[in-house]
Amino acid sequence: MAKTQTTSASLDLLLEIKGRRRAGLTDALREAVRSGRLAPGTRLPASRALAADLGIARSTVTECYAELVAEGWLIARQGSGTAVAPRTEPRPAPPVPAVPPVHGLTPGSMEFADFPRAQWLASARRAMAAAPYSAFGYGDPAGSPELRVALADYLSRVRGVRTGPGRIVVCSGFHNGLGLVARALQARGVRAIGVESYGLGLYRALLADLGLGIPALAVDEGGARTGDLRELGVGAALLTPAHQFPTGVALSPERRLAALEWAHGSGGYILEDDYDGEFRYDRRPVGALQGLDPERVVYFGTASKSLAPALRVGWIVLPEDLVPDVLAAKGRVELVSVLDQLTLADFIASGRFDRHLRARRQTYRRRRDELIAALALAAPAVRVTGMAAGLQAVLELPAGTERATVEAAARRGLMVSGLAEYRHGEPEARDALVVNYSTVSDTAWEGALRVLSGVLA
Amino acid sequence: MAKTQTTSASLDLLLEIKGRRRAGLTDALREAVRSGRLAPGTRLPASRALAADLGIARSTVTECYAELVAEGWLIARQGSGTAVAPRTEPRPAPPVPAVPPVHGLTPGSMEFADFPRAQWLASARRAMAAAPYSAFGYGDPAGSPELRVALADYLSRVRGVRTGPGRIVVCSGFHNGLGLVARALQARGVRAIGVESYGLGLYRALLADLGLGIPALAVDEGGARTGDLRELGVGAALLTPAHQFPTGVALSPERRLAALEWAHGSGGYILEDDYDGEFRYDRRPVGALQGLDPERVVYFGTASKSLAPALRVGWIVLPEDLVPDVLAAKGRVELVSVLDQLTLADFIASGRFDRHLRARRQTYRRRRDELIAALALAAPAVRVTGMAAGLQAVLELPAGTERATVEAAARRGLMVSGLAEYRHGEPEARDALVVNYSTVSDTAWEGALRVLSGVLA
Repeated sequence: MAKTQTTSASLDLLLEIKGRRRAGLTDALREAVRSGRLAPGTRLPASRALAADLGIARSTVTECYAELVAEGWLIARQGSGTAVAPRTEPRPAPPVPAVPPVHGLTPGSMEFADFPRAQWLASARRAMAAAPYSAFGYGDPAGSPELRVALADYLSRVRGVRTGPGRIVVCSGFHNGLGLVARALQARGVRAIGVESYGLGLYRALLADLGLGIPALAVDEGGARTGDLRELGVGAALLTPAHQFPTGVALSPERRLAALEWAHGSGGYILEDDYDGEFRYDRRPVGALQGLDPERVVYFGTASKSLAPALRVGWIVLPEDLVPDVLAAKGRVELVSVLDQLTLADFIASGRFDRHLRARRQTYRRRRDELIAALALAAPAVRVTGMAAGLQAVLELPAGTERATVEAAARRGLMVSGLAEYRHGEPEARDALVVNYSTVSDTAWEGALRVLSGVLA
Repeated sequence: MAKTQTTSASLDLLLEIKGRRRAGLTDALREAVRSGRLAPGTRLPASRALAADLGIARSTVTECYAELVAEGWLIARQGSGTAVAPRTEPRPAPPVPAVPPVHGLTPGSMEFADFPRAQWLASARRAMAAAPYSAFGYGDPAGSPELRVALADYLSRVRGVRTGPGRIVVCSGFHNGLGLVARALQARGVRAIGVESYGLGLYRALLADLGLGIPALAVDEGGARTGDLRELGVGAALLTPAHQFPTGVALSPERRLAALEWAHGSGGYILEDDYDGEFRYDRRPVGALQGLDPERVVYFGTASKSLAPALRVGWIVLPEDLVPDVLAAKGRVELVSVLDQLTLADFIASGRFDRHLRARRQTYRRRRDELIAALALAAPAVRVTGMAAGLQAVLELPAGTERATVEAAARRGLMVSGLAEYRHGEPEARDALVVNYSTVSDTAWEGALRVLSGVLA
């Protein structure tokens, strides 16, 4: 209940007083000062006068004034009573930046439909019940031991990664992990990191912002031309061996070996971005490059594709001698939610992760088949390339039509990416769309597929 | 079921084959290569011979070999069959770094007993049920809008902070937030940030590592001597106004105003670390300094003290013109778990946070009273200083006895901090213990108090 009172003391003080007496008066006065109704410099009524006006004890007013003086709203000047403190006026706060409602088929789409909410909560409940008091502290800067143990087993089993928990450093996703490793390598004197001639500009920008050179390694149907690494003059190379992003080809066996030979011979490192290694549909996945040479390959994995970007959890499997350097780059304070780490550890160890991945693989494979079938009907000239794997497909377009196609789709409310967005130092332009079929809901997928068929027809 | 088979082909190949035929053979061969039982360079049996040996189709063996060649375990040489690929041997992984079982009363203790597990799960369930698909994407780099709206309301109501959601940037804790703001200020030409002469070395190290000067501002019973800021030659000052860390004094009203006058006159910024502003027991909390001048004060809050460090969530309320700079320092990718942010938003908006804080305040107040009572009995000469607030108390010791007392406690299994750990550029040494009573369980607290009384007696 609010009651409004007018004081007749040395100034008219309209106070809306709520709740308990002293707290109510303090709040009302503070609000009056904050809102500017009581301008800086304004003298307040003597405590005796205000107390009489409001019919409350003088000590209540004195305490209220003292509190606001302590907070800095009022100033008490000897001999001249209490006044509103001088202060600068705030400008109005800017509006909240709007999150754009992107419903589309671009990689890295803001929408993510398939998060296993109930299963995740079940793991959160188990993790919370099992966690000792120490689990709620600042955490191990390398990542929670529980998660690193679960990851070591999982990565060895599913991706052929050779590691124990001691080589794993948890990070907040690939972008964060790449930054940590790049800084560690930079501290060791690395001046340039080779990147594939198609890839995400965000990662190139991260490396370039650190002051690193980012010469391009050409990508063709056999993946990155790792035989060229020798001439590139780099200390490391960032590759997507299992499923090149975004062209979708696998690094050929010869080029896998060439990459390792270069690393071994030059003392360089392969940075293996295994962003979608779990998603292969036609056959068993090709194991990680890291399994062949754990001392020369830095393996990066992420929950952003297999669970959801919102988790902000990724992992790095490091050559033994890089572990201290990357921990130093990470700093002494863990960044990643320990609660999420413990939940993910249970999610993996309980088998929920494997079941979830199986279901996701079926969905994505079905969508890929639907994409191929729809295009065969609507636009038989459009070839779908890239392996039967991963989260996106590449649709080859007639030369010179890429930009117009992306724009035509956008006009019909469909966001797709052109291959040009990902090109870096690649002289030969290819016209193509990159279609990510992994993040939207089934309903959105059906609608998007109809629009895409229409645009390409 | 595993069956063991020995091949009599060109080499003896002991393969433990599990499960489905091709997958089983591939796994067994990969394992034999990985474990070193098949040394690099070893030639494998011809596919026809191995197939006959195992009683399986030759095509199965061919496919298996091809898969392992694709993975890089084997190499196929024209005319000379298939052999184990050359590779370097892995060194054994280092052991998992042990998390030290610290059960003590040091600030920043690894133990954290009071996390509201059931209530947090209830909020997680609600947040998960309400979240749209877009909530599972990469997230708004400023932090989830839901959390920023909840924080704006909470901080205004409880701490007198003047903000809308648009000035708030979510970070992974104070350490991360301070780094972001320091880098933003550095990009604007700030070369030094004043720090209190008592404080956490971790934060000073963070600033110094960025190349910033960190001159000290003396702390006495009125808090930091902000009147000295003018001569310090800094572009910003890091203060703990509500409850100086670790000495426990409040910044006096005059010094609050002096700090703001300095900032206003010089164009400098006050960095207000409000780490435990919610924890005041005797009276209503002094409002945040930010409420007096939102354009010159950067306000930092954290869930590490009020909920748990494991959450890794903090928040920065920024002067409007610093928002873009801090977002640029944070980068284009959110670091903080979006799921935790949504859960925290519900935890605050549902009133659970307020209830949790009330309960915590009662616990901490009781512990503070128990500490005073126990010392009055066992060590009446030891004076407890610092306000009736916050998470820790300061126990004044006779001159020259601090180190011996800390060591005596450690010998009896009790970790406490001496004030010397926190001193920076402060000529006048004071001997005292800093006793954090907020993180341990009730049982541990009782035991710790007994040991402490014994040590000080």
